[in-house]
Amino acid sequence: MPSISQKGRSMPESPIRKLVPFAEHALKKGIKVIHLNIGQPDIKTPKIAMDAVRDHDLEILAYGRSEGSETYREKISQYYHKHQLQIRAEDIIVSTGGSEALSFAIGSITDTDDEIIVPEPFYANYNGFATAAGAIVVPVVSQIDNNFALPPIEEFEKLISPKTKAILICNPGNPTGYLYSKEEIKKLADIVKKHDIFLISDEVYREFTYDGKEHRSILQEPGMDEYGIIVDSVSKRYSMCGARIGYLVSKNKEVVKASLKFAQARLSPPTFAQMAAEAALDTPNSYFNAVNREYESRRNILLDELHKIDGIKWGRPQGAFYCIVELPIADADDFARWLLQDYNLNGETVMVAPAAGFYATEGLGKNQIRIAYVLEKESLKRAVHILNEALKEYKKLF
Amino acid sequence: MPSISQKGRSMPESPIRKLVPFAEHALKKGIKVIHLNIGQPDIKTPKIAMDAVRDHDLEILAYGRSEGSETYREKISQYYHKHQLQIRAEDIIVSTGGSEALSFAIGSITDTDDEIIVPEPFYANYNGFATAAGAIVVPVVSQIDNNFALPPIEEFEKLISPKTKAILICNPGNPTGYLYSKEEIKKLADIVKKHDIFLISDEVYREFTYDGKEHRSILQEPGMDEYGIIVDSVSKRYSMCGARIGYLVSKNKEVVKASLKFAQARLSPPTFAQMAAEAALDTPNSYFNAVNREYESRRNILLDELHKIDGIKWGRPQGAFYCIVELPIADADDFARWLLQDYNLNGETVMVAPAAGFYATEGLGKNQIRIAYVLEKESLKRAVHILNEALKEYKKLF
Ligand SMILES: Cc1ncc(COP(=O)(O)O)c(C=O)c1O
Ligand SMILES: Cc1ncc(COP(=O)(O)O)c(C=O)c1O
Repeated sequence: MPSISQKGRSMPESPIRKLVPFAEHALKKGIKVIHLNIGQPDIKTPKIAMDAVRDHDLEILAYGRSEGSETYREKISQYYHKHQLQIRAEDIIVSTGGSEALSFAIGSITDTDDEIIVPEPFYANYNGFATAAGAIVVPVVSQIDNNFALPPIEEFEKLISPKTKAILICNPGNPTGYLYSKEEIKKLADIVKKHDIFLISDEVYREFTYDGKEHRSILQEPGMDEYGIIVDSVSKRYSMCGARIGYLVSKNKEVVKASLKFAQARLSPPTFAQMAAEAALDTPNSYFNAVNREYESRRNILLDELHKIDGIKWGRPQGAFYCIVELPIADADDFARWLLQDYNLNGETVMVAPAAGFYATEGLGKNQIRIAYVLEKESLKRAVHILNEALKEYKKLF
Repeated sequence: MPSISQKGRSMPESPIRKLVPFAEHALKKGIKVIHLNIGQPDIKTPKIAMDAVRDHDLEILAYGRSEGSETYREKISQYYHKHQLQIRAEDIIVSTGGSEALSFAIGSITDTDDEIIVPEPFYANYNGFATAAGAIVVPVVSQIDNNFALPPIEEFEKLISPKTKAILICNPGNPTGYLYSKEEIKKLADIVKKHDIFLISDEVYREFTYDGKEHRSILQEPGMDEYGIIVDSVSKRYSMCGARIGYLVSKNKEVVKASLKFAQARLSPPTFAQMAAEAALDTPNSYFNAVNREYESRRNILLDELHKIDGIKWGRPQGAFYCIVELPIADADDFARWLLQDYNLNGETVMVAPAAGFYATEGLGKNQIRIAYVLEKESLKRAVHILNEALKEYKKLF
């Protein structure tokens, strides 16, 4: 019997997947599971996007252009112009989700065993995309006590080697909710220029910022044209995760040219999804304002409720819709499973994502969980209350 | 300025792409370009598939399951049962086109510098997927004089090394149109079992077979459960290339498990497309019969017309909708460009795909072109007539 590859074996499993059978089991016992574990927004997709597909009059669903349709890329360019970014259509490759843009970026700039430095905790799938391409994620630790701010530049420099091809950040961050300041972006820009490496910025949550803070894109930083690669996506922005449309953006012509070759190999992005995504760009500002207000007040409720729990810490999120919480326990994996398997409060329990899966350094994050606040406020409140009560019970076990 | 990867540089460019500017130029001069160069069918997508999307009532376009929806995988399983293949839902991973299934397969079974043996000429993007994963395509030559039948088993054995992880075939073949016989499939099965490697079979054209011939799948061959990986797609079957839905099929649990991890990293296949693809499975048989009759008669017209041209050879296609034609010229690249740039017959010319891009062995296929017969009969007839007249003119230049 032939055997699969080392790569196939070492591809990371989804950190949540392991818990799914336990959640299903809880459901079977009649227990309601409140999901704090996934980044699937409950917000409605703009009707204008859904209608575009409903009203399609295609007779042949043909391949589109590998780089995305001209009209769509033109409209994305206009979107960026409105957001103070001078991006032209030719700087954009439309991808099948931000996920594929990450694969294109990594493939275009790394060879086997090349390294990408990523502040941890980080979006777990970065590891998967790197592994698939044969590249290696090198973590640099960011600290919960510091809200997961940018690690000191010296920490990056300690890790930079001839194998280092890029720094990859997520801004605002999944799973931290951290929003990098203008000064932090400048520091990153300086370091990549000094070491002649790329800066990949995953900005899929760019429009979700709170406390009146503004998002600073790496391509707003002067002199970054040759160094910067933005990964973007419609998934969260328009609550259309199932569309599978994202894009890679760069002013580095070599990067765009290489990415286009990856895009050509897989032929084209999905046509219906692209129609919906193009229409979504006409979503009125009021939609975003309402959505942002909603997330901000959910964030506030989450923090208010967390304040009521003894002995925990968190990184204060200023963007996206995630929060890392450190619990007064030893093993969040065990706790998360226990919540589903052995606990309920009046027939309800919560599902959380153990945070160890967001760290590459073995042993880190073991007492942390990630909470996604993509629930309406009452459920969210109840969920954190359940978490509080559960913690009290759980601690008694030890 | 940081530089892109060796991988980014060596990713193959689409063999047709180079010609696009010349085609655009011809159009600008008012010349009509008849496309014999691309595998984009002109057949209408089944209405049932298009309506499924038109009638959708989703309010939130959410992520689906990474492996594809349960109902869809169940229905695909039924499809295979109807085609004498005992495939269960759990043997299937739904992918973003057959393209992504190829990436999953290659990623699951190869590490850096591992080799996959592929009869050439082959679908050019195999090279791209292998390069992206760090694997290497090792070609074994098939001969036009033999209709591109399976090369002798000794030729494969000469190439098998400890680095060899699989043989990859395309059946029926793009670009050859060759349909492997039951005996040839058995030979391949024997060799992969003997050498304990995988057999990947790209069966995206499985339903397009002519002359009353039947398609033989590798998973119909006894004892192949641990060895076989099928790549399939809805793109051509239902003329819905823009959907981007395909699937990887294997009874080897390790392969499916590894592929699922690749699938999880990219989250999910496109939702609208999956709706359309699921509905497409209810397309009545009469659709396929009509489509197959249409392609078969196009194939016949193509061959009739080719017979009128002096000094050429071709591989007789018995499946798919491609044909490799060897021309009495030295450089098909130059000829293809000349057709667009310098030639027209009463205001019309043809665009063909130079075949060198389908060979990995340097120097092979230089006097060959690939013709895709995805045009209605009158255009096809005219196109081959133009090709004939053009060849006469072109030969005068030398
Ligand atoms: C930080 C981050 N980047 C990228 C993605 C990929 O999203 P998609 O492929 O849906 O665009 C996600 C999805 O959760 C994410 O959280
Ligand atoms: C032989 C072969 N395999 C795979 C594909 C990929 O098709 P898709 O990704 O649209 O399923 C094609 C497309 O032309 C093909 O010809």
